[in-house]
Amino acid sequence: MTTDTDPTVAEAACFEAGIKFGTLYHQFAGTPVSPDSAASLAQAIEESIENQPHCTDVTVEVLVDELEAELADSAADYTELTGRFLEVDIVVDYEGCEVVTRMEMEDGYPLMRVESVRDR
Amino acid sequence: MTTDTDPTVAEAACFEAGIKFGTLYHQFAGTPVSPDSAASLAQAIEESIENQPHCTDVTVEVLVDELEAELADSAADYTELTGRFLEVDIVVDYEGCEVVTRMEMEDGYPLMRVESVRDR
Amino acid sequence: MTTDTDPTVAEAACFEAGIKFGTLYHQFAGTPVSPDSAASLAQAIEESIENQPHCTDVTVEVLVDELEAELADSAADYTELTGRFLEVDIVVDYEGCEVVTRMEMEDGYPLMRVESVRDR
Amino acid sequence: MTTDTDPTVAEAACFEAGIKFGTLYHQFAGTPVSPDSAASLAQAIEESIENQPHCTDVTVEVLVDELEAELADSAADYTELTGRFLEVDIVVDYEGCEVVTRMEMEDGYPLMRVESVRDR
Repeated sequence: MTTDTDPTVAEAACFEAGIKFGTLYHQFAGTPVSPDSAASLAQAIEESIENQPHCTDVTVEVLVDELEAELADSAADYTELTGRFLEVDIVVDYEGCEVVTRMEMEDGYPLMRVESVRDR
Repeated sequence: MTTDTDPTVAEAACFEAGIKFGTLYHQFAGTPVSPDSAASLAQAIEESIENQPHCTDVTVEVLVDELEAELADSAADYTELTGRFLEVDIVVDYEGCEVVTRMEMEDGYPLMRVESVRDR
Repeated sequence: MTTDTDPTVAEAACFEAGIKFGTLYHQFAGTPVSPDSAASLAQAIEESIENQPHCTDVTVEVLVDELEAELADSAADYTELTGRFLEVDIVVDYEGCEVVTRMEMEDGYPLMRVESVRDR
Repeated sequence: MTTDTDPTVAEAACFEAGIKFGTLYHQFAGTPVSPDSAASLAQAIEESIENQPHCTDVTVEVLVDELEAELADSAADYTELTGRFLEVDIVVDYEGCEVVTRMEMEDGYPLMRVESVRDR
């Protein structure tokens, strides 16, 4: 027998964390970025996503080495931001439940995952 | 004492559902939309988000009455898509756990929430 | 001696056409897309951009062959929309001046250009 | 009699300037923004758009007074970036033709226009 239930606090916290990752990725993917503009973009992404409800900390690293490697093979001096150039950690605190989440490349794809759930 | 634990299947399913909502909203918010183009935009949003992993069903309603009310007070014949003009249902199935989620306006804000979690 | 002058009608028409291309690309780049969802996305892009002022015609082709080639080498069954998968024609008519513009790949980059200006 | 002609350098420069405005608006509209995060967002927008070809200068002002006025009437402490909160100047130099362009609110809409074309 299956049952439908309301979400637990921890489940709602994980939903909130997922919203932040989808927001971050699809708001900023496609932004023109170069090694010189990577730092200001990373800071703006962190501060913009930290505005969202229940979001206590966002850490964004734009991978300048990866940018430089891509541009070395290219006629252009900038590219579009995509998951290949990003590592992101997001911490959400929802009604006392802290969820730690991370995005990094895995097998060629930007994988978003829940690292830990505290105090379920 | 607090403890950090790995997410349950249901928590991971809720995280996945949140990603879909953040993606949907921040990919498509800002799109020029009118009553005449609302239907094609709703279909494209549904089909694009259904491409994402674990996403079994997306239903998007672009609220044409709300668009028409906004445009009636306006010199323009189109506006930008935002939460005020959207109602969205997303169903995620992650490792056998089905999560039903919804976005609609509440107190003037587009509220995203988990409606139910099945088979935890 | 240099002189600053107001734009001609044709220059303003070309500015308007550029706005449509920047809008189209940066609104929709990053959208999850697969061969099955390409047609609905192309139609939604056309109808959304045609809402913009002075925009008389938008034709979007999502290159399904290119999508299929990319996905053949991939573990995923969808990807993110980017210029490699797009060919776009936009016609703007501004105060009687018709500008025909196009985006297609050239030397590995999505090149946007003015094809013709009529009736300067 | 109508004639189709290739664009002049000045027309191509205006097309390039329009691309930058459409890019700027549709890449960043929808970004969560508050008075505290306005400065980092403005800097990131400037540096990202300045990466684009022929773009010599971008000046972005996020209107903190307008943000504060909107939030004063609101239960939220942030909002989504939209034209109401932006004033932008973009200078493009294309093959020696300098085009100065601006976006600001006019009659309730974010109006993008060419201010001057130099050295046609």
